[in-house]
Amino acid sequence: MNEFIKKVNEHRTIREFTDEKVSEEILHTLFESLMRTATSNGLQQATIIRVTDPVKKEQISKVSNQEYVARATELLIFIADSFRNDRLVKDNGENIEKESDVDMFFQGFTDASLLAQNATNIIESLGLGAVYLGSILNDAEEIIKILELPELTFPVVGIGFGHPNQDPQLKPRMDVEFRVFENSYKKFDNYKDALKGYDEEMTTYYDLRESNRRVETFSNQVINKLKNPTARRAELIEMAKKNGYKL
Amino acid sequence: MNEFIKKVNEHRTIREFTDEKVSEEILHTLFESLMRTATSNGLQQATIIRVTDPVKKEQISKVSNQEYVARATELLIFIADSFRNDRLVKDNGENIEKESDVDMFFQGFTDASLLAQNATNIIESLGLGAVYLGSILNDAEEIIKILELPELTFPVVGIGFGHPNQDPQLKPRMDVEFRVFENSYKKFDNYKDALKGYDEEMTTYYDLRESNRRVETFSNQVINKLKNPTARRAELIEMAKKNGYKL
Repeated sequence: MNEFIKKVNEHRTIREFTDEKVSEEILHTLFESLMRTATSNGLQQATIIRVTDPVKKEQISKVSNQEYVARATELLIFIADSFRNDRLVKDNGENIEKESDVDMFFQGFTDASLLAQNATNIIESLGLGAVYLGSILNDAEEIIKILELPELTFPVVGIGFGHPNQDPQLKPRMDVEFRVFENSYKKFDNYKDALKGYDEEMTTYYDLRESNRRVETFSNQVINKLKNPTARRAELIEMAKKNGYKL
Repeated sequence: MNEFIKKVNEHRTIREFTDEKVSEEILHTLFESLMRTATSNGLQQATIIRVTDPVKKEQISKVSNQEYVARATELLIFIADSFRNDRLVKDNGENIEKESDVDMFFQGFTDASLLAQNATNIIESLGLGAVYLGSILNDAEEIIKILELPELTFPVVGIGFGHPNQDPQLKPRMDVEFRVFENSYKKFDNYKDALKGYDEEMTTYYDLRESNRRVETFSNQVINKLKNPTARRAELIEMAKKNGYKL
Protein backbone atom coordinates (compact mmCIF):
# COMPACT_ATOMS: atom_id res chain seq x y z
CA MET A 1 0.00 0.00 0.00
CA ASN A 2 1.59 3.28 -1.07
CA GLU A 3 1.45 6.63 0.77
CA PHE A 4 -1.51 7.84 -1.27
CA ILE A 5 -3.59 4.72 -0.64
CA LYS A 6 -2.79 5.06 3.08
CA LYS A 7 -4.23 8.58 2.91
CA VAL A 8 -7.36 7.31 1.15
CA ASN A 9 -7.84 4.82 3.97
CA GLU A 10 -7.46 7.58 6.54
CA HIS A 11 -10.08 9.81 4.90
CA ARG A 12 -12.13 11.67 7.47
CA THR A 13 -14.17 14.82 7.09
CA ILE A 14 -12.35 17.82 8.58
CA ARG A 15 -14.64 20.71 9.49
CA GLU A 16 -12.40 22.81 11.73
CA PHE A 17 -9.19 24.42 10.55
CA THR A 18 -6.28 26.31 12.15
CA ASP A 19 -5.61 29.97 11.33
CA GLU A 20 -2.77 28.96 9.02
CA LYS A 21 -3.45 30.08 5.47
CA VAL A 22 -3.28 27.68 2.54
CA SER A 23 -0.15 28.82 0.69
CA GLU A 24 -0.27 30.29 -2.79
CA GLU A 25 2.04 27.47 -3.85
CA ILE A 26 -0.45 24.82 -2.75
CA LEU A 27 -3.35 26.61 -4.42
CA HIS A 28 -1.36 26.93 -7.63
CA THR A 29 -0.42 23.24 -7.59
CA LEU A 30 -4.01 22.25 -6.79
CA PHE A 31 -5.63 24.20 -9.62
CA GLU A 32 -2.99 23.36 -12.22
CA SER A 33 -3.17 19.66 -11.31
CA LEU A 34 -6.97 19.65 -11.42
CA MET A 35 -6.91 20.72 -15.05
CA ARG A 36 -5.55 17.20 -15.76
CA THR A 37 -8.67 15.51 -14.35
CA ALA A 38 -10.48 13.22 -16.76
CA THR A 39 -13.44 14.86 -18.49
CA SER A 40 -16.33 13.48 -20.56
CA ASN A 41 -15.46 13.54 -24.27
CA GLY A 42 -12.60 15.92 -23.45
CA LEU A 43 -15.16 18.74 -23.29
CA GLN A 44 -14.08 20.11 -19.87
CA GLN A 45 -17.60 21.05 -18.86
CA ALA A 46 -16.85 21.95 -15.27
CA THR A 47 -15.62 25.09 -13.56
CA ILE A 48 -14.37 25.93 -10.07
CA ILE A 49 -15.27 29.07 -8.15
CA ARG A 50 -12.91 29.86 -5.28
CA VAL A 51 -14.88 31.87 -2.76
CA THR A 52 -12.75 34.32 -0.76
CA ASP A 53 -15.29 37.11 -0.18
CA PRO A 54 -16.41 36.78 3.48
CA VAL A 55 -19.90 38.07 2.62
CA LYS A 56 -20.36 35.36 -0.02
CA LYS A 57 -18.93 32.72 2.33
CA GLU A 58 -21.51 33.75 4.93
CA GLN A 59 -24.30 33.57 2.31
CA ILE A 60 -23.20 30.09 1.21
CA SER A 61 -22.94 29.04 4.85
CA LYS A 62 -26.61 30.00 5.24
CA VAL A 63 -27.65 27.93 2.23
CA SER A 64 -25.68 25.01 3.64
CA ASN A 65 -27.18 25.58 7.06
CA GLN A 66 -23.72 24.85 8.47
CA GLU A 67 -21.97 27.71 10.25
CA TYR A 68 -18.53 26.11 9.83
CA VAL A 69 -18.72 26.74 6.07
CA ALA A 70 -18.09 30.47 6.59
CA ARG A 71 -15.05 29.63 8.73
CA ALA A 72 -13.37 27.25 6.25
CA THR A 73 -9.93 28.54 5.27
CA GLU A 74 -10.65 27.86 1.60
CA LEU A 75 -14.00 27.30 -0.07
CA LEU A 76 -14.41 25.88 -3.58
CA ILE A 77 -17.67 25.40 -5.45
CA PHE A 78 -17.65 22.95 -8.37
CA ILE A 79 -19.93 23.89 -11.24
CA ALA A 80 -21.35 21.89 -14.15
CA ASP A 81 -20.66 24.23 -17.04
CA SER A 82 -22.03 24.03 -20.58
CA PHE A 83 -22.02 27.82 -20.90
CA ARG A 84 -18.38 28.08 -22.00
CA ASN A 85 -18.68 25.59 -24.86
CA ASP A 86 -22.06 26.95 -25.90
CA ARG A 87 -20.52 30.42 -26.26
CA LEU A 88 -17.47 28.99 -28.01
CA VAL A 89 -19.74 27.38 -30.60
CA LYS A 90 -21.66 30.64 -31.14
CA ASP A 91 -18.46 32.72 -31.33
CA ASN A 92 -17.33 30.34 -34.07
CA GLY A 93 -20.39 31.35 -36.06
CA GLU A 94 -22.23 28.07 -35.54
CA ASN A 95 -25.78 28.00 -34.28
CA ILE A 96 -26.63 24.45 -33.36
CA GLU A 97 -30.29 23.88 -32.60
CA LYS A 98 -30.31 21.32 -29.84
CA GLU A 99 -33.40 19.41 -28.85
CA SER A 100 -31.96 18.58 -25.47
CA ASP A 101 -29.12 19.36 -23.10
CA VAL A 102 -29.62 16.25 -20.96
CA ASP A 103 -26.35 14.67 -22.03
CA MET A 104 -24.39 17.90 -21.52
CA PHE A 105 -25.98 18.46 -18.10
CA PHE A 106 -24.99 15.03 -16.83
CA GLN A 107 -21.54 15.18 -18.42
CA GLY A 108 -20.99 18.49 -16.63
CA PHE A 109 -22.35 17.07 -13.38
CA THR A 110 -19.97 14.12 -13.63
CA ASP A 111 -17.01 16.30 -14.65
CA ALA A 112 -17.58 18.55 -11.63
CA SER A 113 -17.77 15.54 -9.28
CA LEU A 114 -14.56 14.05 -10.67
CA LEU A 115 -12.82 17.40 -10.15
CA ALA A 116 -14.07 17.53 -6.56
CA GLN A 117 -12.77 14.06 -5.69
CA ASN A 118 -9.43 14.74 -7.37
CA ALA A 119 -9.22 17.97 -5.35
CA THR A 120 -9.97 16.12 -2.11
CA ASN A 121 -7.30 13.53 -2.89
CA ILE A 122 -4.71 16.21 -3.69
CA ILE A 123 -5.62 18.21 -0.56
CA GLU A 124 -5.39 15.15 1.69
CA SER A 125 -2.15 13.97 0.07
CA LEU A 126 -0.63 17.28 1.25
CA GLY A 127 -1.68 16.66 4.84
CA LEU A 128 -4.53 19.15 4.69
CA GLY A 129 -8.15 18.29 5.48
CA ALA A 130 -11.42 18.83 3.64
CA VAL A 131 -15.17 18.74 4.07
CA TYR A 132 -17.58 18.05 1.23
CA LEU A 133 -20.54 20.40 1.04
CA GLY A 134 -23.39 18.63 -0.72
CA SER A 135 -25.47 21.05 1.32
CA ILE A 136 -24.99 23.81 -1.27
CA LEU A 137 -27.81 22.05 -3.14
CA ASN A 138 -30.20 22.98 -0.32
CA ASP A 139 -30.86 25.94 -2.58
CA ALA A 140 -29.10 25.74 -5.94
CA GLU A 141 -30.95 28.83 -7.16
CA GLU A 142 -29.47 30.93 -4.36
CA ILE A 143 -25.95 29.60 -5.09
CA ILE A 144 -26.45 30.57 -8.75
CA LYS A 145 -27.27 34.12 -7.58
CA ILE A 146 -24.41 34.39 -5.07
CA LEU A 147 -21.77 33.22 -7.58
CA GLU A 148 -23.38 35.06 -10.52
CA LEU A 149 -23.48 31.86 -12.55
CA PRO A 150 -24.61 32.27 -16.17
CA GLU A 151 -27.16 30.15 -18.02
CA LEU A 152 -26.22 26.53 -18.74
CA THR A 153 -24.27 26.19 -15.51
CA PHE A 154 -25.28 24.46 -12.28
CA PRO A 155 -23.65 24.04 -8.85
CA VAL A 156 -22.79 20.42 -8.02
CA VAL A 157 -20.81 20.25 -4.78
CA GLY A 158 -18.54 22.36 -2.58
CA ILE A 159 -15.38 21.66 -0.62
CA GLY A 160 -14.05 23.54 2.39
CA PHE A 161 -10.40 22.88 3.20
CA GLY A 162 -7.40 24.01 5.18
CA HIS A 163 -4.98 22.89 7.87
CA PRO A 164 -6.86 20.51 10.20
CA ASN A 165 -7.68 21.62 13.71
CA GLN A 166 -9.39 18.40 14.73
CA ASP A 167 -8.65 14.71 14.63
CA PRO A 168 -11.92 12.82 14.26
CA GLN A 169 -12.39 9.07 14.52
CA LEU A 170 -12.68 7.04 11.31
CA LYS A 171 -16.38 6.66 10.57
CA PRO A 172 -17.56 3.07 10.20
CA ARG A 173 -18.44 2.17 6.63
CA MET A 174 -20.55 -0.56 5.12
CA ASP A 175 -18.65 -3.73 4.27
CA VAL A 176 -17.46 -4.23 0.73
CA GLU A 177 -19.75 -7.29 0.35
CA PHE A 178 -22.77 -4.95 0.24
CA ARG A 179 -21.30 -2.53 -2.28
CA VAL A 180 -19.12 -4.46 -4.74
CA PHE A 181 -20.65 -7.23 -6.83
CA GLU A 182 -19.52 -9.38 -9.72
CA ASN A 183 -21.36 -9.39 -13.07
CA SER A 184 -24.81 -8.60 -11.68
CA TYR A 185 -26.47 -6.79 -8.79
CA LYS A 186 -26.71 -8.94 -5.68
CA LYS A 187 -29.83 -8.50 -3.58
CA PHE A 188 -29.90 -9.55 0.07
CA ASP A 189 -32.98 -11.25 1.51
CA ASN A 190 -33.31 -8.92 4.46
CA TYR A 191 -31.21 -5.79 4.76
CA LYS A 192 -32.07 -5.24 8.41
CA ASP A 193 -30.55 -8.61 9.28
CA ALA A 194 -27.69 -8.32 6.80
CA LEU A 195 -26.65 -4.88 8.09
CA LYS A 196 -27.13 -5.66 11.79
CA GLY A 197 -23.39 -5.75 12.46
CA TYR A 198 -22.89 -2.43 10.67
CA ASP A 199 -25.77 -0.88 12.59
CA GLU A 200 -24.13 -1.87 15.86
CA GLU A 201 -20.67 -0.75 14.79
CA MET A 202 -22.05 2.68 13.88
CA THR A 203 -23.24 3.28 17.44
CA THR A 204 -19.62 3.04 18.64
CA TYR A 205 -18.73 6.09 16.54
CA TYR A 206 -18.48 9.48 18.23
CA ASP A 207 -19.46 12.35 16.00
CA LEU A 208 -17.50 15.54 16.68
CA ARG A 209 -20.35 17.53 15.17
CA GLU A 210 -22.76 16.29 17.79
CA SER A 211 -20.65 17.28 20.83
CA ASN A 212 -19.08 13.87 20.85
CA ARG A 213 -22.31 11.99 21.34
CA ARG A 214 -22.55 8.46 20.05
CA VAL A 215 -24.49 8.29 16.82
CA GLU A 216 -27.54 6.30 15.83
CA THR A 217 -27.56 3.05 13.89
CA PHE A 218 -27.09 3.38 10.16
CA SER A 219 -30.68 2.20 9.63
CA ASN A 220 -32.01 5.01 11.81
CA GLN A 221 -29.82 7.55 10.03
CA VAL A 222 -31.32 6.49 6.70
CA ILE A 223 -34.87 6.52 8.07
CA ASN A 224 -34.41 9.98 9.62
CA LYS A 225 -32.93 11.35 6.43
CA LEU A 226 -35.79 10.05 4.28
CA LYS A 227 -38.42 11.26 6.76
CA ASN A 228 -36.94 14.77 6.78
CA PRO A 229 -36.17 15.75 3.21
CA THR A 230 -34.56 19.14 2.56
CA ALA A 231 -37.24 21.21 0.88
CA ARG A 232 -35.69 22.72 -2.22
CA ARG A 233 -33.54 19.72 -3.08
CA ALA A 234 -36.54 18.11 -4.78
CA GLU A 235 -36.58 21.02 -7.23
CA LEU A 236 -33.09 20.38 -8.58
CA ILE A 237 -34.20 19.48 -12.10
CA GLU A 238 -36.66 22.38 -12.22
CA MET A 239 -33.91 24.79 -11.15
CA ALA A 240 -31.56 23.48 -13.83
CA LYS A 241 -34.31 24.05 -16.41
CA LYS A 242 -34.77 27.57 -15.05
CA ASN A 243 -31.06 28.14 -15.63
CA GLY A 244 -31.35 27.33 -19.31
CA TYR A 245 -30.92 23.58 -19.61
CA LYS A 246 -33.46 21.79 -21.82
CA LEU A 247 -33.98 18.70 -19.68
CA MET B 1 4.87 18.13 -5.41
CA ASN B 2 4.48 14.65 -3.92
CA GLU B 3 4.41 11.35 -5.83
CA PHE B 4 0.63 11.29 -5.99
CA ILE B 5 0.35 14.81 -7.41
CA LYS B 6 2.99 13.88 -9.98
CA LYS B 7 0.73 10.99 -11.03
CA VAL B 8 -2.29 13.33 -11.27
CA ASN B 9 -0.27 15.55 -13.60
CA GLU B 10 0.66 12.57 -15.74
CA HIS B 11 -2.95 11.40 -16.14
CA ARG B 12 -3.59 10.00 -19.58
CA THR B 13 -6.32 7.69 -20.76
CA ILE B 14 -5.00 4.14 -21.22
CA ARG B 15 -7.10 2.00 -23.56
CA GLU B 16 -4.74 -0.88 -24.30
CA PHE B 17 -3.45 -3.27 -21.67
CA THR B 18 -0.90 -6.09 -21.48
CA ASP B 19 -1.96 -9.67 -20.79
CA GLU B 20 -0.82 -9.36 -17.17
CA LYS B 21 -3.72 -9.86 -14.79
CA VAL B 22 -4.54 -7.35 -12.07
CA SER B 23 -3.56 -9.20 -8.88
CA GLU B 24 -6.11 -10.21 -6.26
CA GLU B 25 -4.10 -8.13 -3.80
CA ILE B 26 -4.55 -4.97 -5.88
CA LEU B 27 -8.27 -5.64 -6.36
CA HIS B 28 -8.69 -6.22 -2.63
CA THR B 29 -6.82 -3.01 -1.76
CA LEU B 30 -8.80 -1.07 -4.36
CA PHE B 31 -12.26 -2.15 -3.20
CA GLU B 32 -11.48 -1.89 0.52
CA SER B 33 -9.98 1.57 0.04
CA LEU B 34 -12.93 2.74 -2.06
CA MET B 35 -15.29 2.07 0.83
CA ARG B 36 -13.61 5.07 2.54
CA THR B 37 -14.64 7.48 -0.24
CA ALA B 38 -16.71 10.44 0.92
CA THR B 39 -20.45 9.94 0.46
CA SER B 40 -23.43 12.33 0.61
CA ASN B 41 -24.92 12.38 4.13
CA GLY B 42 -22.98 9.19 4.84
CA LEU B 43 -25.70 7.26 2.99
CA GLN B 44 -23.33 5.29 0.69
CA GLN B 45 -25.73 5.37 -2.25
CA ALA B 46 -23.36 3.93 -4.82
CA THR B 47 -22.39 0.41 -5.82
CA ILE B 48 -19.69 -1.10 -8.01
CA ILE B 49 -20.22 -3.99 -10.40
CA ARG B 50 -17.01 -5.74 -11.46
CA VAL B 51 -17.68 -7.30 -14.84
CA THR B 52 -15.65 -10.46 -15.47
CA ASP B 53 -18.09 -12.40 -17.68
CA PRO B 54 -16.76 -12.12 -21.27
CA VAL B 55 -20.29 -12.19 -22.69
CA LYS B 56 -21.33 -9.23 -20.56
CA LYS B 57 -18.10 -7.39 -21.38
CA GLU B 58 -18.89 -7.85 -25.05
CA GLN B 59 -22.45 -6.57 -24.54
CA ILE B 60 -21.20 -3.49 -22.66
CA SER B 61 -18.61 -2.94 -25.35
CA LYS B 62 -21.45 -2.78 -27.89
CA VAL B 63 -23.36 -0.20 -25.84
CA SER B 64 -20.15 1.84 -25.56
CA ASN B 65 -19.51 1.42 -29.25
CA GLN B 66 -15.83 0.92 -28.36
CA GLU B 67 -14.35 -2.48 -29.08
CA TYR B 68 -11.49 -1.99 -26.60
CA VAL B 69 -13.98 -2.15 -23.72
CA ALA B 70 -14.34 -5.93 -24.16
CA ARG B 71 -10.54 -6.27 -24.05
CA ALA B 72 -9.97 -4.27 -20.84
CA THR B 73 -8.29 -6.42 -18.20
CA GLU B 74 -10.73 -5.21 -15.56
CA LEU B 75 -14.08 -3.49 -16.06
CA LEU B 76 -15.97 -1.68 -13.31
CA ILE B 77 -19.38 -0.06 -13.61
CA PHE B 78 -20.30 2.56 -11.00
CA ILE B 79 -23.97 2.65 -10.06
CA ALA B 80 -26.11 5.26 -8.31
CA ASP B 81 -27.95 3.11 -5.79
CA SER B 82 -30.96 4.07 -3.69
CA PHE B 83 -32.29 0.50 -3.80
CA ARG B 84 -30.24 -0.73 -0.83
CA ASN B 85 -31.33 2.00 1.57
CA ASP B 86 -34.93 1.83 0.34
CA ARG B 87 -35.02 -1.88 1.17
CA LEU B 88 -33.27 -1.28 4.49
CA VAL B 89 -36.01 1.19 5.46
CA LYS B 90 -38.76 -1.26 4.46
CA ASP B 91 -37.06 -4.19 6.24
CA ASN B 92 -37.05 -2.01 9.36
CA GLY B 93 -40.85 -1.84 9.11
CA GLU B 94 -40.94 1.78 7.97
CA ASN B 95 -42.89 2.79 4.90
CA ILE B 96 -41.93 6.32 4.03
CA GLU B 97 -44.11 7.88 1.35
CA LYS B 98 -41.75 10.04 -0.65
CA GLU B 99 -42.97 12.67 -3.04
CA SER B 100 -39.68 12.71 -4.87
CA ASP B 101 -36.38 10.88 -5.24
CA VAL B 102 -34.61 13.78 -6.96
CA ASP B 103 -32.26 14.39 -4.07
CA MET B 104 -31.44 10.69 -3.68
CA PHE B 105 -30.87 10.30 -7.41
CA PHE B 106 -28.35 13.13 -7.54
CA GLN B 107 -26.68 12.09 -4.29
CA GLY B 108 -26.23 8.61 -5.74
CA PHE B 109 -24.98 10.04 -9.03
CA THR B 110 -22.41 12.16 -7.17
CA ASP B 111 -21.42 9.28 -4.87
CA ALA B 112 -20.79 7.02 -7.86
CA SER B 113 -18.68 9.71 -9.58
CA LEU B 114 -16.58 10.28 -6.45
CA LEU B 115 -15.98 6.51 -6.23
CA ALA B 116 -14.90 6.43 -9.86
CA GLN B 117 -12.36 9.23 -9.49
CA ASN B 118 -11.00 7.75 -6.27
CA ALA B 119 -10.66 4.42 -8.12
CA THR B 120 -8.80 6.08 -10.99
CA ASN B 121 -6.43 7.80 -8.57
CA ILE B 122 -5.75 4.55 -6.70
CA ILE B 123 -5.24 2.63 -9.96
CA GLU B 124 -2.85 5.25 -11.36
CA SER B 125 -0.95 5.53 -8.06
CA LEU B 126 -0.13 1.82 -8.47
CA GLY B 127 1.34 2.37 -11.94
CA LEU B 128 -1.69 0.89 -13.69
CA GLY B 129 -3.72 2.73 -16.33
CA ALA B 130 -7.42 3.39 -16.77
CA VAL B 131 -10.02 4.56 -19.27
CA TYR B 132 -13.27 6.24 -18.26
CA LEU B 133 -16.34 4.92 -20.04
CA GLY B 134 -18.96 7.63 -20.08
CA SER B 135 -20.12 5.77 -23.17
CA ILE B 136 -22.07 3.26 -21.05
CA LEU B 137 -24.77 5.97 -20.99
CA ASN B 138 -25.24 5.53 -24.75
CA ASP B 139 -27.93 3.13 -23.57
CA ALA B 140 -28.46 3.13 -19.81
CA GLU B 141 -31.49 0.88 -20.19
CA GLU B 142 -29.41 -1.83 -21.82
CA ILE B 143 -26.75 -1.56 -19.07
CA ILE B 144 -29.53 -1.97 -16.48
CA LYS B 145 -30.54 -5.21 -18.24
CA ILE B 146 -27.02 -6.57 -18.67
CA LEU B 147 -26.09 -6.02 -15.01
CA GLU B 148 -29.55 -6.98 -13.72
CA LEU B 149 -29.83 -3.72 -11.81
CA PRO B 150 -32.90 -3.42 -9.56
CA GLU B 151 -35.26 -0.44 -9.33
CA LEU B 152 -33.86 2.78 -7.83
CA THR B 153 -30.42 2.20 -9.31
CA PHE B 154 -28.81 3.82 -12.33
CA PRO B 155 -25.48 3.38 -14.15
CA VAL B 156 -23.25 6.47 -13.98
CA VAL B 157 -19.84 5.72 -15.45
CA GLY B 158 -17.49 2.81 -16.15
CA ILE B 159 -13.74 2.31 -15.86
CA GLY B 160 -11.58 -0.15 -17.73
CA PHE B 161 -8.14 -0.72 -16.22
CA GLY B 162 -5.05 -2.89 -16.22
CA HIS B 163 -1.32 -2.83 -16.91
CA PRO B 164 -0.70 -0.24 -19.65
CA ASN B 165 0.35 -1.39 -23.09
CA GLN B 166 0.61 2.09 -24.59
CA ASP B 167 2.23 5.38 -23.69
CA PRO B 168 0.11 8.20 -25.09
CA GLN B 169 1.06 11.86 -25.21
CA LEU B 170 -0.40 14.19 -22.56
CA LYS B 171 -3.53 15.74 -24.05
CA PRO B 172 -3.55 19.54 -24.05
CA ARG B 173 -6.01 21.02 -21.57
CA MET B 174 -7.66 24.39 -21.30
CA ASP B 175 -5.72 26.90 -19.20
CA VAL B 176 -6.70 27.37 -15.58
CA GLU B 177 -7.73 31.00 -16.28
CA PHE B 178 -10.80 29.70 -18.17
CA ARG B 179 -11.87 27.22 -15.52
CA VAL B 180 -11.04 28.62 -12.06
CA PHE B 181 -12.58 31.92 -10.99
CA GLU B 182 -12.72 33.91 -7.76
CA ASN B 183 -16.03 34.79 -6.11
CA SER B 184 -18.09 34.96 -9.29
CA TYR B 185 -18.25 33.46 -12.77
CA LYS B 186 -15.98 35.27 -15.22
CA LYS B 187 -17.29 35.60 -18.77
CA PHE B 188 -14.94 36.25 -21.67
CA ASP B 189 -15.94 38.65 -24.46
CA ASN B 190 -15.20 36.25 -27.28
CA TYR B 191 -14.38 32.62 -26.62
CA LYS B 192 -13.10 32.00 -30.13
CA ASP B 193 -10.43 34.64 -29.62
CA ALA B 194 -9.77 33.75 -25.99
CA LEU B 195 -9.27 30.04 -26.78
CA LYS B 196 -7.26 30.56 -29.98
CA GLY B 197 -4.01 29.43 -28.37
CA TYR B 198 -5.66 26.33 -26.96
CA ASP B 199 -7.23 25.53 -30.32
CA GLU B 200 -3.79 25.66 -31.95
CA GLU B 201 -2.12 23.66 -29.19
CA MET B 202 -4.75 20.92 -29.60
CA THR B 203 -3.77 20.35 -33.24
CA THR B 204 -0.26 19.36 -32.11
CA TYR B 205 -1.71 16.41 -30.19
CA TYR B 206 -1.57 12.97 -31.76
CA ASP B 207 -4.46 10.75 -30.80
CA LEU B 208 -3.54 7.07 -30.55
CA ARG B 209 -7.17 6.19 -31.18
CA GLU B 210 -7.09 7.84 -34.58
CA SER B 211 -4.05 5.97 -35.93
CA ASN B 212 -1.82 8.75 -34.68
CA ARG B 213 -3.46 11.45 -36.76
CA ARG B 214 -3.31 15.00 -35.48
CA VAL B 215 -6.60 16.05 -33.95
CA GLU B 216 -8.88 18.96 -34.69
CA THR B 217 -9.03 22.23 -32.81
CA PHE B 218 -10.92 22.13 -29.53
CA SER B 219 -13.60 24.40 -31.03
CA ASN B 220 -14.22 21.92 -33.85
CA GLN B 221 -14.33 19.02 -31.40
CA VAL B 222 -17.07 20.81 -29.45
CA ILE B 223 -18.99 21.72 -32.61
CA ASN B 224 -18.80 18.15 -33.95
CA LYS B 225 -19.92 16.71 -30.64
CA LEU B 226 -22.94 19.02 -30.41
CA LYS B 227 -23.88 18.42 -34.04
CA ASN B 228 -23.80 14.65 -33.57
CA PRO B 229 -25.56 13.84 -30.31
CA THR B 230 -25.74 10.21 -29.21
CA ALA B 231 -29.36 9.21 -29.58
CA ARG B 232 -30.42 7.61 -26.32
CA ARG B 233 -28.37 9.90 -24.09
CA ALA B 234 -31.14 12.51 -24.27
CA GLU B 235 -33.46 10.00 -22.58
CA LEU B 236 -31.40 9.68 -19.41
CA ILE B 237 -33.99 11.24 -17.10
CA GLU B 238 -36.81 9.23 -18.72
CA MET B 239 -34.83 6.01 -18.25
CA ALA B 240 -34.19 6.79 -14.58
CA LYS B 241 -37.93 7.34 -14.12
CA LYS B 242 -38.57 4.02 -15.84
CA ASN B 243 -36.23 2.41 -13.30
CA GLY B 244 -38.35 3.62 -10.39
CA TYR B 245 -37.03 7.09 -9.54
CA LYS B 246 -39.69 9.77 -9.01
CA LEU B 247 -37.93 12.64 -10.76
